[in-house]
Amino acid sequence: MAKALPVSPLAQPLPELPPLAGVRFGATEAGIRYTGRTDLVMAEFAPGTTVAGVYTKSKCPGAPVDWCRAAMADGRARALVVNAGNANVFTGRAGFEATQANAADAARLVNCAATEVFLASTGVIGEVLPYQKISAALPGLYATLSADGWADAARGIMTTDTFPKAATRTAKIGETTVRIQGIAKGSGMVAPDMATMLSFVATDAKLPASVLQSFLTEGVNRSFNCITVDSDTSTSDMVLLFATGQAGNAEITDPASPTLAHFRAALDSLLLELALLVIRDGEGVTKVMHVVVTGATSDESAHKVAMAVANSPLVKTAVAGEDANWGRVVMAVGKCGEPANRDTLSVGIGGTWIAEGGTVVPDYDETPVVAHMRGKEIEITIDLGLANGTAQAWGCDLTHGYIDINGSYRS
Amino acid sequence: MAKALPVSPLAQPLPELPPLAGVRFGATEAGIRYTGRTDLVMAEFAPGTTVAGVYTKSKCPGAPVDWCRAAMADGRARALVVNAGNANVFTGRAGFEATQANAADAARLVNCAATEVFLASTGVIGEVLPYQKISAALPGLYATLSADGWADAARGIMTTDTFPKAATRTAKIGETTVRIQGIAKGSGMVAPDMATMLSFVATDAKLPASVLQSFLTEGVNRSFNCITVDSDTSTSDMVLLFATGQAGNAEITDPASPTLAHFRAALDSLLLELALLVIRDGEGVTKVMHVVVTGATSDESAHKVAMAVANSPLVKTAVAGEDANWGRVVMAVGKCGEPANRDTLSVGIGGTWIAEGGTVVPDYDETPVVAHMRGKEIEITIDLGLANGTAQAWGCDLTHGYIDINGSYRS
Repeated sequence: MAKALPVSPLAQPLPELPPLAGVRFGATEAGIRYTGRTDLVMAEFAPGTTVAGVYTKSKCPGAPVDWCRAAMADGRARALVVNAGNANVFTGRAGFEATQANAADAARLVNCAATEVFLASTGVIGEVLPYQKISAALPGLYATLSADGWADAARGIMTTDTFPKAATRTAKIGETTVRIQGIAKGSGMVAPDMATMLSFVATDAKLPASVLQSFLTEGVNRSFNCITVDSDTSTSDMVLLFATGQAGNAEITDPASPTLAHFRAALDSLLLELALLVIRDGEGVTKVMHVVVTGATSDESAHKVAMAVANSPLVKTAVAGEDANWGRVVMAVGKCGEPANRDTLSVGIGGTWIAEGGTVVPDYDETPVVAHMRGKEIEITIDLGLANGTAQAWGCDLTHGYIDINGSYRS
Repeated sequence: MAKALPVSPLAQPLPELPPLAGVRFGATEAGIRYTGRTDLVMAEFAPGTTVAGVYTKSKCPGAPVDWCRAAMADGRARALVVNAGNANVFTGRAGFEATQANAADAARLVNCAATEVFLASTGVIGEVLPYQKISAALPGLYATLSADGWADAARGIMTTDTFPKAATRTAKIGETTVRIQGIAKGSGMVAPDMATMLSFVATDAKLPASVLQSFLTEGVNRSFNCITVDSDTSTSDMVLLFATGQAGNAEITDPASPTLAHFRAALDSLLLELALLVIRDGEGVTKVMHVVVTGATSDESAHKVAMAVANSPLVKTAVAGEDANWGRVVMAVGKCGEPANRDTLSVGIGGTWIAEGGTVVPDYDETPVVAHMRGKEIEITIDLGLANGTAQAWGCDLTHGYIDINGSYRS
């Protein structure tokens, strides 16, 4: 883990991240595992901030996930503490005690209840978190928190990430312009000893926690839950959404209100941008893959088909090899157990339909498909021809780089 | 596909394959796709032979799978025709007509009904099978069928396989000694344009098709259905079991009869040996992985956990890298959705328990585990601590070789 990974060829520059009223961020070097880089991030939120969260479905979640789930109960947040280098997963009672101690540390600084402090950890599994290092570093870090700290925070939460990830949007709620801004980390869907997917999003809109939760759950279902690097799921994944209420809009409690439609669209768009940044930093990535499924018996069924294609090692290696191997797409559709009928199935790549009605299209000309496969963004289209269910998924290729990153001897 | 793959470092030599009464095998060069090697295999079975089959669960199966499923209806078989190089999958009406033609060809030679002919094809998907080449080659091939043709057949069905695979057993049914003997191919769980898993097993025992089917289904569930190379499933996978009835044992119609217990154990053992040979030829394999799960809420749940671990790219790359990364095993258990409790979960590698009771064991010494990881056969043990469900799965590591084989440009 000492040697630096080459930056992803699909990296994107950090956008400008303006201040967001009611949020102050900062990062410092706590020396948890890495040296010579920041590894501890803190945020303070204005009094009255509401929060929503979506967490890993793992049955073996890390102690910080347990902590946040419990802390969410009253929907209020004042602080966030994130460390990189140690996931505090599978650490038993010591792991729970570490979360208690660091939440209390942050609560003292911010002058709030410990349950208003949210915690996240990523890094190695099964090693006790040296929480004392975090306790020692927090007062100094707190003193440096700044409305301009977003970029530092985006860098401070990285593990095997090769570039920092952030996105920003504005939206109208009635006459009020609000901002939504977030950071993310992730490069494997997870590599439990290093990577994991975390995202922290804040808005200055005034929204009750129930509305935030509704929007976040649905937005994550269409973004972070539609990406896959290697089908593996972290013990630490989480997406948190904080609303500071500083923008001054009139509070709306009905998530279906048309007044919130613009905000919701902006949030969805931001979540998808962050999710796609994770894919663009997939371990060993050289190409991203966008899978579009139509004609399924339901959206849920379409989602399973899309994810089966995006996860298939044989599809992923074909994309890596620039091989327009549509037979592997047929295989992945066929294996996933969802309703499919060979004789109504159509498969296209890069806008060219290749197979239809149970066989290859007459006079199929591979030329445009081969040209498309040489690009960096590969589009695979599947029409099941059964009903109206649709879904999209995003993945990446499977390359020697993935093996290098995950198969190397531990140092 | 022109260049020869290096032989798997885990290859096993073909065992001696004695004649089995009522079975004659042969192989020839039909020039379907390969040149300079056999690619067409035929078997003739004695009149009265019964048959059972287990097929791919793919929703997009090949035409030969459709053919065999239909032909199984009366449980009788007289011939088997297998070609390598073209899977006859996703070939529409032309694919169906190819199966009809080749079944009729073989039926004429053997003097049986076309529905007593079983067909299997592996190779490229979506190209119409040049069945006329098979029609042309069959009469000459039929003339060469021999009781000594087993080894030739094992070689003739290979695609990306790097070594031929066969196993043999004897068993007692009452006072009669019977033989069970089989061949298999497979190296990816499937690479639809090349590989697939096929196995053909015959016995001289006299057994009704219903008993064969019962034994085969359960035996496959504990062998071929517990192996995985890359989680992908072929459109063409099948295992067929033929019983010629030449051994002269008294026919027994109750699969639960104690008189059949020895036969059944021998069949199970043979199926597992064949399945493990496929794993030992997994694409790019350098190590095999044996996952044992105990303490699950049911055997089925244990099976899902074991397969999730064996399929996890992060576990597979850790095995390739000789990294005793038990955190990735915890991750794979946690992600698969089966009942699991972090605080009752135990994980061991190579006979050493590493994690117990939600954390690493006190004074865990990695030395024996590191030594075990350097071997060729890696054993991962998981006790969920919930109930009595158990299962085993077998997989292999994920290496640069897999990427080379599946990610190379098509020639």
